[in-house]
Amino acid sequence: MMNFQYYAPTQVVFGKDTETQVGELIKAQNGTKVLVHYGTGSVIRTGLLDRVCASLNEAGIPYVSLGGAVPNPRLSLVYEGIELAKKEGVNFILAVGGGSAIDSAKAIALGMKYEGDVWDLYLKKSQAKAGTPLGVVLTIAATGSEMSDSTVITNEEGWLKRGLHSALIRPRFAVMNPELTYTLPEYQTMSGCVDIMMHTLERYFSHEMNTELTDYLAEGLLKTVMHAAKILLKDPKNYEARAEVLWAGSLSHNGLTGCGRTGDWACHQLEHELGGMFDVAHGAGLSAVWGSWARYVYHSDVARFAKFAVNVMGIPYDYADPEKTVLEGIEALENFFRSIRMPVSITELGVELGEDQMKELAYKCTYMETRTIGGIQKLGKEDIEKIYRMAK
Amino acid sequence: MMNFQYYAPTQVVFGKDTETQVGELIKAQNGTKVLVHYGTGSVIRTGLLDRVCASLNEAGIPYVSLGGAVPNPRLSLVYEGIELAKKEGVNFILAVGGGSAIDSAKAIALGMKYEGDVWDLYLKKSQAKAGTPLGVVLTIAATGSEMSDSTVITNEEGWLKRGLHSALIRPRFAVMNPELTYTLPEYQTMSGCVDIMMHTLERYFSHEMNTELTDYLAEGLLKTVMHAAKILLKDPKNYEARAEVLWAGSLSHNGLTGCGRTGDWACHQLEHELGGMFDVAHGAGLSAVWGSWARYVYHSDVARFAKFAVNVMGIPYDYADPEKTVLEGIEALENFFRSIRMPVSITELGVELGEDQMKELAYKCTYMETRTIGGIQKLGKEDIEKIYRMAK
Repeated sequence: MMNFQYYAPTQVVFGKDTETQVGELIKAQNGTKVLVHYGTGSVIRTGLLDRVCASLNEAGIPYVSLGGAVPNPRLSLVYEGIELAKKEGVNFILAVGGGSAIDSAKAIALGMKYEGDVWDLYLKKSQAKAGTPLGVVLTIAATGSEMSDSTVITNEEGWLKRGLHSALIRPRFAVMNPELTYTLPEYQTMSGCVDIMMHTLERYFSHEMNTELTDYLAEGLLKTVMHAAKILLKDPKNYEARAEVLWAGSLSHNGLTGCGRTGDWACHQLEHELGGMFDVAHGAGLSAVWGSWARYVYHSDVARFAKFAVNVMGIPYDYADPEKTVLEGIEALENFFRSIRMPVSITELGVELGEDQMKELAYKCTYMETRTIGGIQKLGKEDIEKIYRMAK
Repeated sequence: MMNFQYYAPTQVVFGKDTETQVGELIKAQNGTKVLVHYGTGSVIRTGLLDRVCASLNEAGIPYVSLGGAVPNPRLSLVYEGIELAKKEGVNFILAVGGGSAIDSAKAIALGMKYEGDVWDLYLKKSQAKAGTPLGVVLTIAATGSEMSDSTVITNEEGWLKRGLHSALIRPRFAVMNPELTYTLPEYQTMSGCVDIMMHTLERYFSHEMNTELTDYLAEGLLKTVMHAAKILLKDPKNYEARAEVLWAGSLSHNGLTGCGRTGDWACHQLEHELGGMFDVAHGAGLSAVWGSWARYVYHSDVARFAKFAVNVMGIPYDYADPEKTVLEGIEALENFFRSIRMPVSITELGVELGEDQMKELAYKCTYMETRTIGGIQKLGKEDIEKIYRMAK
């Protein structure tokens, strides 16, 4: 087991009707003026925003609102939020929505306390020293941003997408009511399930074998999400399945499933560049490349891939031919992705990828050939091109 | 799944040589004068205290020391600590040791900020409003106090043992180096393993079935500890096994393994009163009563006990006779306890329990017949007497 740090200080308030506690939760954090930050309308249509504002009113906490956060949240809205929050004397930010609203709120929280241009922080030109505290009412199980210390923002000038990590932006609380996810379209629900699984799989695939407890937690989480996803395909308002997925989403990305190991993260990089060039859902992009990545790298750690096949996918271990076990495990996960209508190739993702584009993506993945990606096997530009070709 | 809150804000710093980071960790918490609080000598003998103090010196943080915390930590030492810390202008407390040193440090942390007698807080006459921040260098895997919000103190006047919960005393950080647990005697190591398992089992046994993820986490934790305990029996300096047990100890009692369910806690109550009457190690007391409790209550939830038997103890499910599966599961856990030289009866615990004493213990368990205990089955005085008799 490698040395590790684990720090997940967000107070989780989980279950039915928990959004009515928002006012009291903010009061406990000494918030006296709130910026309510949300997305593009679904929280209005469902009445959630009204319920949240009612809770603030009940607690006697004044607030201002700013909607408009979109997938790949934009810097321009962040600037708008910073200006509004400063002008109004806001001292607490409440994100109502999914990863986009949360990441945007995190950027506003840092920008409010930073003298210069908040984008400097994302470009690593400067480091954040303070941030306005923030809380979350979560409406999508996917990114895990509700318990994480990270934010990703897109600058429309040049369409640069950049992320940063800071302990200052871990949400103080996350209100998680599974019922709020009932109305998500199937594609978004399933893409979220893949995203959650991949946050765990990226941590699972690295060489360290002596992490028995971490492995059990990861394997249990993966099995839980797979089981729940199949239920939600037929019954999207199944409370128990929604609850399992929602909780798994947080635990998948708060560090717990990676304690004592390094992680791989090559698939995230492969998808990140793909998502930069084409407009694809993050989870769907991940399922489209995972199988090809796995088949390309598994020789580097047959034991690890066999453990995954047996413990997660329920494949019987073939003592005479462990590689057979591995390949059956990879195929079984691809079949699972298919069963929840997620793509297992880039074509199925709806993208026609040309040879030149593959080369460009591989070039970008390696930061213009200045680095390799991946942990279980280090991948250079040539490797990455081959994986994109396999995944086509 | 029931509604739940999960809040575990302690920063875990896990692995080899991590105790050398203590000075910097306290600096990050703005600690400028420290009370180092520890037990009865082993931390001196092993040189740990010297290393910790060297780290404080290196960070330029002055400190005072107070040793002497004993199992069932005493109120008199707490008073002494409060006086010393106030006189010296301490603004951070560092516990170096196991549950006793940590619980004692928590009491000092609350007492320093409370105008009246700190014991009032334990008697629930008053509620804590503030506490001095504290951190931990852990030397025993057992109680989980390093991530918990609870403290138990014994008042020598009348030998009253009382606990309290407060968010104010969650350690800011927990430094956990598995090597520091190498020198623990076998009995203490194994008793700690039982304690850790029981923190999870008490949460596992309640009626709610729709907690798939929580159950996987709990089952994985139990299997990890059982596997590691057997290794440590033969090889007490096995780093990986020590590491698994140490991390399991924290996760077992920080709330994670109980999310979405109520828990039972009857065995803890049975042991608590037994431990009050006789001087027994907590974990050993728990293993001595568990099997009898399980056989007495399993009829109330055969499905739950069968799930335990199959998923944790590896018993094949008997579709024709589920109770057979349950009983085999209970026997298998008792056999595990035997295999790590832990008692499975009160006699094996070294206690000769008379009929009058059983009645007295049962009377105390029910707070003089004013309440029942247990979740999976509510137990009154008569039930408890029967369980003690079965466990004899």
